[in-house]
Amino acid sequence: MDTRELTELAQQLRVDSVRVADRAGSGHPTSSMSAADLMAVLLANHLRYDFDHPDHPGNDRMIFSKGHASPLLYSMYLAAGAIDEDEFLTYRTHGSRLEGHPTPRLPWVDVATGSLGQGLPIAVGMALADQRLDHTSDRMWVLCGDSEMAEGSIWEAAEHAGNQHLDDLTLIIDVNRLGQRGPTRHQRDLDAYGRRLRAFDWHTVEIDGHDVDAVERAFKDAESTAGKPTAIIAGTRKGRGVHAVEDREGMHGKPLKDAEEAIEELGGRRSIRVSVAPPPAAPEEAAPRPRPLALPRYEIGGTVPTRDAFGEALTALGHAYENVVVLDGEVGDSTRAEYFAKEHPQRYFECYIAEQQMVAAAVGMQALGRVPYAVTFAAFLTRAHDFLRMAAVSRASLNVVGSHAGVSIGEDGPSQMGVEDLAMFRAIHGSTVLQPCDANQTARLVAATHDLEGIRYLRTMRGGTPVIYGPDEEFPIGGSKILRQSDADRVTLIGTGVTVHECLAAADTLAQQGIAARVIDMYSLKPVDENTLSAAAEDTDCLVTVEDHHPQGGLGDAVAETFADGRPAPRRLVRLAVKTMPGSATGEEQRRAAGIDAESIGAGVRLLVEKIIR
Amino acid sequence: MDTRELTELAQQLRVDSVRVADRAGSGHPTSSMSAADLMAVLLANHLRYDFDHPDHPGNDRMIFSKGHASPLLYSMYLAAGAIDEDEFLTYRTHGSRLEGHPTPRLPWVDVATGSLGQGLPIAVGMALADQRLDHTSDRMWVLCGDSEMAEGSIWEAAEHAGNQHLDDLTLIIDVNRLGQRGPTRHQRDLDAYGRRLRAFDWHTVEIDGHDVDAVERAFKDAESTAGKPTAIIAGTRKGRGVHAVEDREGMHGKPLKDAEEAIEELGGRRSIRVSVAPPPAAPEEAAPRPRPLALPRYEIGGTVPTRDAFGEALTALGHAYENVVVLDGEVGDSTRAEYFAKEHPQRYFECYIAEQQMVAAAVGMQALGRVPYAVTFAAFLTRAHDFLRMAAVSRASLNVVGSHAGVSIGEDGPSQMGVEDLAMFRAIHGSTVLQPCDANQTARLVAATHDLEGIRYLRTMRGGTPVIYGPDEEFPIGGSKILRQSDADRVTLIGTGVTVHECLAAADTLAQQGIAARVIDMYSLKPVDENTLSAAAEDTDCLVTVEDHHPQGGLGDAVAETFADGRPAPRRLVRLAVKTMPGSATGEEQRRAAGIDAESIGAGVRLLVEKIIR
Repeated sequence: MDTRELTELAQQLRVDSVRVADRAGSGHPTSSMSAADLMAVLLANHLRYDFDHPDHPGNDRMIFSKGHASPLLYSMYLAAGAIDEDEFLTYRTHGSRLEGHPTPRLPWVDVATGSLGQGLPIAVGMALADQRLDHTSDRMWVLCGDSEMAEGSIWEAAEHAGNQHLDDLTLIIDVNRLGQRGPTRHQRDLDAYGRRLRAFDWHTVEIDGHDVDAVERAFKDAESTAGKPTAIIAGTRKGRGVHAVEDREGMHGKPLKDAEEAIEELGGRRSIRVSVAPPPAAPEEAAPRPRPLALPRYEIGGTVPTRDAFGEALTALGHAYENVVVLDGEVGDSTRAEYFAKEHPQRYFECYIAEQQMVAAAVGMQALGRVPYAVTFAAFLTRAHDFLRMAAVSRASLNVVGSHAGVSIGEDGPSQMGVEDLAMFRAIHGSTVLQPCDANQTARLVAATHDLEGIRYLRTMRGGTPVIYGPDEEFPIGGSKILRQSDADRVTLIGTGVTVHECLAAADTLAQQGIAARVIDMYSLKPVDENTLSAAAEDTDCLVTVEDHHPQGGLGDAVAETFADGRPAPRRLVRLAVKTMPGSATGEEQRRAAGIDAESIGAGVRLLVEKIIR
Repeated sequence: MDTRELTELAQQLRVDSVRVADRAGSGHPTSSMSAADLMAVLLANHLRYDFDHPDHPGNDRMIFSKGHASPLLYSMYLAAGAIDEDEFLTYRTHGSRLEGHPTPRLPWVDVATGSLGQGLPIAVGMALADQRLDHTSDRMWVLCGDSEMAEGSIWEAAEHAGNQHLDDLTLIIDVNRLGQRGPTRHQRDLDAYGRRLRAFDWHTVEIDGHDVDAVERAFKDAESTAGKPTAIIAGTRKGRGVHAVEDREGMHGKPLKDAEEAIEELGGRRSIRVSVAPPPAAPEEAAPRPRPLALPRYEIGGTVPTRDAFGEALTALGHAYENVVVLDGEVGDSTRAEYFAKEHPQRYFECYIAEQQMVAAAVGMQALGRVPYAVTFAAFLTRAHDFLRMAAVSRASLNVVGSHAGVSIGEDGPSQMGVEDLAMFRAIHGSTVLQPCDANQTARLVAATHDLEGIRYLRTMRGGTPVIYGPDEEFPIGGSKILRQSDADRVTLIGTGVTVHECLAAADTLAQQGIAARVIDMYSLKPVDENTLSAAAEDTDCLVTVEDHHPQGGLGDAVAETFADGRPAPRRLVRLAVKTMPGSATGEEQRRAAGIDAESIGAGVRLLVEKIIR
């Protein structure tokens, strides 16, 4: 399109943004209007996209990191003919795909946005996978607001993109000066963004974002720049085109007072239809057939850390499936993700100490069909909580592995201990949460995660634990293992991970004291094996959960929930967990101090059994 | 100290780091050795600190952001005479104050570190409070590793510090080239850090970190630089001084193989004692006496959003207590934190969209005696999860307020909905978790939070709710309110926040249908009112929890835990919560879709009551 046509298209996008927010009675028309010229040029002259085939490997990727500008995005879809006027008008209503912030309920939206500062790091993940593995010629276009440039995750992404020369990536910053509550930190100082990004090894172009010719030149510049990602830093005016709201404070996130007048001021409704350029034809590549999976096998009776078994199983998974990619937070030697790196260096992505970027990159890569495993210490995954929460909204399928679980890590102390991770992951929508207690179980569970949907979390341990299962034992998701059982059971001990072994030791001592205890290995924490728990409640009427985690949100709660959803509860349910603030000590001392070791379990059970008898 | 003395002191710090890690059998001597010259110069010639009075307002603040270099920190304490040799040798043993990573169990440690990238943002909070409120002449010295420069939180802090001209802040980057698993991204490229920080408006000095004269000059330069924070970017060698480990990969986080030989190579043990310069005498300022607290009062029967009442109560709190400070994540107009800003602009800190920095600044400010309220959308607090977790390890006392709770926010959709926040905050060690359902209750709870210990979380709502309590009603922490009660109660409905009102409406309908329902307002989610719950279980044998939150970790689990810790359980405990992925819709439609509205509650109860009768 030429200058005049682009200007007209931009006005149409503004008009449609105004009227759809007006119709909905909420939304962000002014944040849409500032970026309308930028997006008109992108849609008409640069985006290559087949709306009928959103999975086309040659498609460009367009991410609205400023997800609140959804009226603009949907106006673009309308102009491209991807949606019709009827659907357009369902914006923000119950059941509509056109949500307040875009989600993959729309097939052209790869990832959900709306929590600011996420679009760029996700696009970096896409561009990394593309550069290293897919080698297609598609481009990643990210539209950011100026306010979200304050998020640290943007700078993790900027660092990655510059350092890795991601020249398929273009960041468009809509510097409209006004955030939600008033002026942004840098207001109209385009160079504030420019000099920061240049310091991070980006190519930058500073332009008037309402000059469609300048925008056109900037996009061409981005397309022709090799070896560096490009940032188009566009000075714009929020609410551009409507005097009553343009560049005014207090106009964020609300429909215009007089939409009809505004539409008139913008030149009225138009019905320009854009023929978006299709992606270059891509050869139909059949997905490589998986090779046989040769999981590591461990001898019963040995002592192996589950993190080691994870690293070995992950490596085997990499041999079987070409789609497996691994992301490290600069602790691959400790988590054992590095085992994978040694055999599959092309599919191993070092994210350095930037957990948000690590998880965001995983989200981006799964959107392109990869099966990512993002791996760091369980404790440090809390850094990426918002990205994990949003990954669920993105309907993402990815694996997250947290090592160094619990107080059992020992001397390093509480900063390194994952004792909130189960609570975090269980509360994420549609998640699966697993914690193996031995090496063969770990290998089997790693294999199982490959084909699951949603966010899968696997929790591994630093120290060695005895191998108690044979290598051919099966561990269905949502199952559990009964390790001790008799007709005389008077109590059920339920462990997960390291505490399974503490429960076993406690059961042995109790047996010597004439108290038969059932022992359950609850390796699947979400979903949890409700039938086995119910049977144990019925048989023993006394359940004790033991976990190396805080008392909230973990194993104890998973078990309590079983009986809080209608199943007959046992007479006693006692939850042993880490209730004190740990310091430095050996793993054994830590478990003793927390009251989750065999001795504490035994003492507790004796007290309980006596109480129940009396 | 002069060059020779400084060099000797640095060698002593190395020797002591080596021997203490050797004694412990774990720890990070090599990461300590790289920074020994830097810290020798700081301790001997620049730090002003009274180890006998760690609360002295004139004390400098020294934060080891690279907390794993604790052997170096403790060696400095030993050299300063703050700890003796006997205690020094307890490093990393059970019960010792000298943990693997420093925590405030030591009186000279203001905040815990060990999760990298946190020290600088916390120091920014201290420097902000100092610049704006305290006006003392103390300096903040932060020692960072090079690996942690990859964390986005570092760049949120860099942005803040540069933009706010925090010239009392000095960042010392120990660029020792090697991270945990190998070379860092930028290895020896000091300018990679330098040009980034300069772009963020810092003054930078690049030096050889083993040249004590250069270090001395750099510190002087930092002290004399006005209007900008200074970064001393020091090229160093990990394991410096011991050939077997110096600048070698694979030597991270482990004691030296031959400590005795290493100590000999370093010139043997020394016993230099450093007289650390005292801070300038500060006038004993009596803390200002609180003025009477005039909380807002609301008429029963009105409709007021709890976020509004929060903003008004917070403002009142600001009038009563000079120590209250408020931190905003650029959403103060929505959270109503802005009400406080209007009356107390000096104590209101705009953190822009940088939630990690917001919470870190709160941690820093509470360490200097302030009572911070960090406020943003509940959903976006997940961004700061790692900082909240570490705040508990820091024994920090601070308030966090999350607005826009639950699906009830309506059209904006899932990205903006706090539906995991209760799980996150309940799992934090020593936390208090509160959710008011009306305006007067909100005001009272805000007032109560001021004097609590630990991390206090208050959850507020976007939409208006009816005022059901009088302004003089009291709401003790750990209490609850019984809103409907009779001898004929056959079921207990337990709500929190908006669902209290849904429970009340359901109870009214059920009453018309001949089913008497008790209704409890569970405004305190941690601690929870176990006695009232037990009584309800005994009286009605059937409890239904209703929450605008995911089913894991929130109200339902808090109630289930009560009966999982030994109290006789009710025959039925049913948990209604948000189990589906919401889209856009009105608040009412959202609650209906999630099955947490009055109608769903009523239908569920009728089913339950029939089941129990039959």
